[in-house]
Amino acid sequence: MRILLTNDDGINAPGLWALYKELKQVGEVVVVAPDSERSAVGHAITLSDPLRVWNFEKNGEFFGYAVNGTPADCVKIAYWALLDKKPDLVVSGINLGSNTGMNVIYSGTVSAATEGTILNIPSFAISLTTFTNPDFAYAAKFGAKLAKILFEKGLPKGTFLNVNVPPGKEEEIQGVVITRQGKAAYMERFDKRIDPQNRIYYWLTGKKVEIEEDLNVDDFAILNNRVSITPIHYDLTNYQYLDELKSWGITP
Amino acid sequence: MRILLTNDDGINAPGLWALYKELKQVGEVVVVAPDSERSAVGHAITLSDPLRVWNFEKNGEFFGYAVNGTPADCVKIAYWALLDKKPDLVVSGINLGSNTGMNVIYSGTVSAATEGTILNIPSFAISLTTFTNPDFAYAAKFGAKLAKILFEKGLPKGTFLNVNVPPGKEEEIQGVVITRQGKAAYMERFDKRIDPQNRIYYWLTGKKVEIEEDLNVDDFAILNNRVSITPIHYDLTNYQYLDELKSWGITP
Repeated sequence: MRILLTNDDGINAPGLWALYKELKQVGEVVVVAPDSERSAVGHAITLSDPLRVWNFEKNGEFFGYAVNGTPADCVKIAYWALLDKKPDLVVSGINLGSNTGMNVIYSGTVSAATEGTILNIPSFAISLTTFTNPDFAYAAKFGAKLAKILFEKGLPKGTFLNVNVPPGKEEEIQGVVITRQGKAAYMERFDKRIDPQNRIYYWLTGKKVEIEEDLNVDDFAILNNRVSITPIHYDLTNYQYLDELKSWGITP
Repeated sequence: MRILLTNDDGINAPGLWALYKELKQVGEVVVVAPDSERSAVGHAITLSDPLRVWNFEKNGEFFGYAVNGTPADCVKIAYWALLDKKPDLVVSGINLGSNTGMNVIYSGTVSAATEGTILNIPSFAISLTTFTNPDFAYAAKFGAKLAKILFEKGLPKGTFLNVNVPPGKEEEIQGVVITRQGKAAYMERFDKRIDPQNRIYYWLTGKKVEIEEDLNVDDFAILNNRVSITPIHYDLTNYQYLDELKSWGITP
């Protein structure tokens, strides 16, 4: 099994390294990842700047390709320019922090898996749902296990998996739940400050204001120490609303 | 009707100006838009840099707020920090170039409408499907018409409209079609070049390789001189696949 591994925290991130070591046990791993952190880049691609690629070393050995682009760029350039063989699997992560609910649409980690899926490669994104004292060991082990499963089972065209792993040791995990993307709203705030030159600037902050107390929802599954796996597709059409909209009879 | 107008081509783009003039006929318009072009930023938000806001003048008068962020940032900061009243409608555009098929997931224009929808405001994105000699007149007129319709009809929670208008005069338009997002694949290529310092760099280029010949698909509707309107939602869960995935019985 040939695995393309990327992330959005950058090629030197501990989450990628932890996953790399586990994936090496189950297949051949090629790392193509951003040269620095690209969090909340969403599904961005780089059109107006040229992309550059560097050989990145770790512990004195070649480790992978660092790209001055987004996670989506990394998957594209790996597939179309760097790799000589199509990978069997695209894996993105392990992200530091959850990618659940509304945040899925902002996630660079998820966008790399979307990109793999567009290229008809079974793909998954994997995130550790904490920022505090992250221990990637169990998430990495689970990622390698899932890679083997996906290599056997495959995925339907246009669908990939968004995986979120709660923090903690393996023995604390209460199970795996197949979930839907949560719909919880955010209360956002722009913290207004004055810089040393007396100019106003703003920092975005936000917190979830509702929790859907349903074990079939990504966030609530994690809260309950379950690994959450959501099948995601990128056809954004709201099919249920097509007929209603047609009935409006909009003319030019 | 109070309309929040934004785009991803920047506050000084001709497409925004054309739409602004028409929207002024049907409501009060507040412009909050990126200070420069942000194409293909996807659904990005700015977390690691502070946002700044400038009063932007046009023809010697205050025109709107320019933000050093993405279209999604503009909608967020307008709602949470700049406006004193919630807008009745969020409009994003007119974009120079189509936002159809797979490209919807990369579109900054579309992401602004997504953001409006998350805030429970009826929203639409509107694009002119050409880069050559763009004439925004008809698209702007249609945009103002649609704004009035949406103000009356509303939209269901979580759904917005992605509108693509073919180039040409009003009399050339053959109708309005309610469409689904196309699934046509892209053949991409990275053009490999050598810079003056003898370093390799890459430019991304791509073209659609299949066309779905179905008038109910966004791209094909446009090709046939129809205005395409796709209802979009941001719940990416593939519900049809939940049961299959559960049947795998994945364990921790």
